[in-house]
Amino acid sequence: MKILVLNCGSSSIKYQLFNMDDENHHVLGKGAVEKIALKGSFLKHEKENGEKVLLEGEILDHQTGIDYILGVLSSDKHGCIKNLEEIDAVGHRVVHGGETFNSSVFITNEVVEKMNECIELAPLHNPPNLSGISAIEQLLPNVPQVGVFDTAFHQTMPKYSYMYAIPYSLYEKYGIRRYGFHGTSHKYVSKRACEILGLDIKNSKVISCHLGNGASISAVKNGESVDTSMGFTPVEGLMMGTRAGDLDIGAATFIMDKEMIGTKSASNLFNKQSGLLGITGISSDMREIREAAAKDDKMAKLALDMYSYKIKKYVGAYAAAMGGVDAIIFTGGIGENAVYVREDVCEGLEYMGVELDCAKNETIYSKEELISKESSKVKVVVVPTDEELVIARDTKQIVEELANR
Amino acid sequence: MKILVLNCGSSSIKYQLFNMDDENHHVLGKGAVEKIALKGSFLKHEKENGEKVLLEGEILDHQTGIDYILGVLSSDKHGCIKNLEEIDAVGHRVVHGGETFNSSVFITNEVVEKMNECIELAPLHNPPNLSGISAIEQLLPNVPQVGVFDTAFHQTMPKYSYMYAIPYSLYEKYGIRRYGFHGTSHKYVSKRACEILGLDIKNSKVISCHLGNGASISAVKNGESVDTSMGFTPVEGLMMGTRAGDLDIGAATFIMDKEMIGTKSASNLFNKQSGLLGITGISSDMREIREAAAKDDKMAKLALDMYSYKIKKYVGAYAAAMGGVDAIIFTGGIGENAVYVREDVCEGLEYMGVELDCAKNETIYSKEELISKESSKVKVVVVPTDEELVIARDTKQIVEELANR
Repeated sequence: MKILVLNCGSSSIKYQLFNMDDENHHVLGKGAVEKIALKGSFLKHEKENGEKVLLEGEILDHQTGIDYILGVLSSDKHGCIKNLEEIDAVGHRVVHGGETFNSSVFITNEVVEKMNECIELAPLHNPPNLSGISAIEQLLPNVPQVGVFDTAFHQTMPKYSYMYAIPYSLYEKYGIRRYGFHGTSHKYVSKRACEILGLDIKNSKVISCHLGNGASISAVKNGESVDTSMGFTPVEGLMMGTRAGDLDIGAATFIMDKEMIGTKSASNLFNKQSGLLGITGISSDMREIREAAAKDDKMAKLALDMYSYKIKKYVGAYAAAMGGVDAIIFTGGIGENAVYVREDVCEGLEYMGVELDCAKNETIYSKEELISKESSKVKVVVVPTDEELVIARDTKQIVEELANR
Repeated sequence: MKILVLNCGSSSIKYQLFNMDDENHHVLGKGAVEKIALKGSFLKHEKENGEKVLLEGEILDHQTGIDYILGVLSSDKHGCIKNLEEIDAVGHRVVHGGETFNSSVFITNEVVEKMNECIELAPLHNPPNLSGISAIEQLLPNVPQVGVFDTAFHQTMPKYSYMYAIPYSLYEKYGIRRYGFHGTSHKYVSKRACEILGLDIKNSKVISCHLGNGASISAVKNGESVDTSMGFTPVEGLMMGTRAGDLDIGAATFIMDKEMIGTKSASNLFNKQSGLLGITGISSDMREIREAAAKDDKMAKLALDMYSYKIKKYVGAYAAAMGGVDAIIFTGGIGENAVYVREDVCEGLEYMGVELDCAKNETIYSKEELISKESSKVKVVVVPTDEELVIARDTKQIVEELANR
């Protein structure tokens, strides 16, 4: 079964074509369309053998972009399939599933309607996701589509965990509550960690730190998300590349008054100009900040200290929330590679049974590996995430179930 | 030495007159002026023997209110001093000391000027505090005055702990950072807990939960505050009577857009209509909510669960921040009396060495007492707070030091 996975953003579309027939799936081709509706739009494609091509072209909307992708995938020169009929199903990443979707779903007209209702909750993210679904409907009308939601895994959170202490009517009227994101990643790495460590997932307490340009952390008890740091929007929680994370709402309104800005500019300030970039003024990229800190840049050092400290506090909070922890997972670009962040976060957590193997930690980049000492009660583990694979798997499973009905 | 302690709010003035001569200080009289500049203003006074009097009168401003207080304290009928010359010093609670004041201070013109500069940080609280100081200057011109700041104890927080991940320029321009409040209380109870438990304060890790109508929690390491839940303003952190505590700033701006409200109304919403009141719609009073929950009120139960869960997560976070914890303190009206909150918070914290003595916990109301089991590695203790006493003590100490110079 060949499955195309699409992740449609406002001005880009990422894709991966999976061959899911063999037990060890493999990627036939992948790439991205960038700068949709902007000057200089292009498609970059990577073949199975690693060869890369860059194709320029005027890409004015998502449908044109997906048409371009399908063309490349089935082309003689760069393609990996002979014709489009080889594509058995398409899986879409959908950012927000509200309270409606607690698992991946086969896309019908009714489902699209419900997704439309969730737009309000993610006005920047859900519309391009829906454009992708509609484009496939036009271009591959007979191919089944599946939606995989960033929020679905967190729908198991208990109510006392997802509610904010604001008037209850705001939850009823607008659905204001913690939803959480990165669910696909937290689900994948927490399950994978249990497999690696030989833990019974039905009787496990896992803290999953997804640290990428966006970052969130989840408390996963018995395989279910019970709390997570991103909230109603992806701005809450940890310090991120350009996002503020947790901030006193009194400070937010104070800044709006002082700077004489409205909610849009405030949102831009806290989403695009804050985080690592806001503190350092240098970059939102952890590697560059690490380099600057190595050269004794004060602000870069402060940003690193803040970054790890906030993660450490969430680890502590979620250990308390679950009544202890069996394993701590690091994933995402930073989690998989930033040796110093992992070390800083684990330092001082001996009281809860964490003993990092510092020497081993220093040698692990982007691969599945235990990095705690053998004596460590709490296992610390690096698990590279693979959201696209989860989407492909969920898509395969749902399409097969439907076929077997 | 007789010391008058004043806590001037926008429409009320609380006072206590202490006799600090004997080793065991005692309160000669206390009370409050209420509804200043409002209809039906009055003064309620309690004598040393517990007898209470209520005196009506038109109280249009803080100076009139303090004049009224001084009159009652020195009156033949209700008073406890023969004349005002018996008052040796006045200590004021001042809410916000910014980064300028890291300890209590003898009030000079220069200090008042600096306090004026802090008004912007606490526009509702600092002005009445300053009115009180100016009134005493008029009414008791020769009496030394001391300012005791709610924020001072937290000035020891490390920078990575007090900075928000927003553009650094906002800290430089407006002083946006975590300040923390309830410092007088956290300082008092953390010191007292070390005394009770026989801990060396210079080598101690204490978490202090001040749970009153306002609520905050502090990590106190070696006697110094290293983190606290209230932030730039007192709205951040725990769920409170009417305050929201932690909230996604993305949710805040979303609500402002939907409800078409500006920063003032938003501030009012999150400060006055949220918290326990916002969830239950019944009350901001923990006792009433507990009663409703006992009668199976769903929202009251939810509010209780949320309330304790948020405290539990902070306890976990601060244990991680300090690398473990020796003692957890409960104080404030709720912390000293709400048996069920203490039980809920401690439940499941065995992994970090907390073993609550549930039977004993149920018998302890508003008194200094250990409530953990003897085997508990982490001691849990109730310590009634006494902010007025700390203000009186600080005042006495500063005035005596000046006299001895």
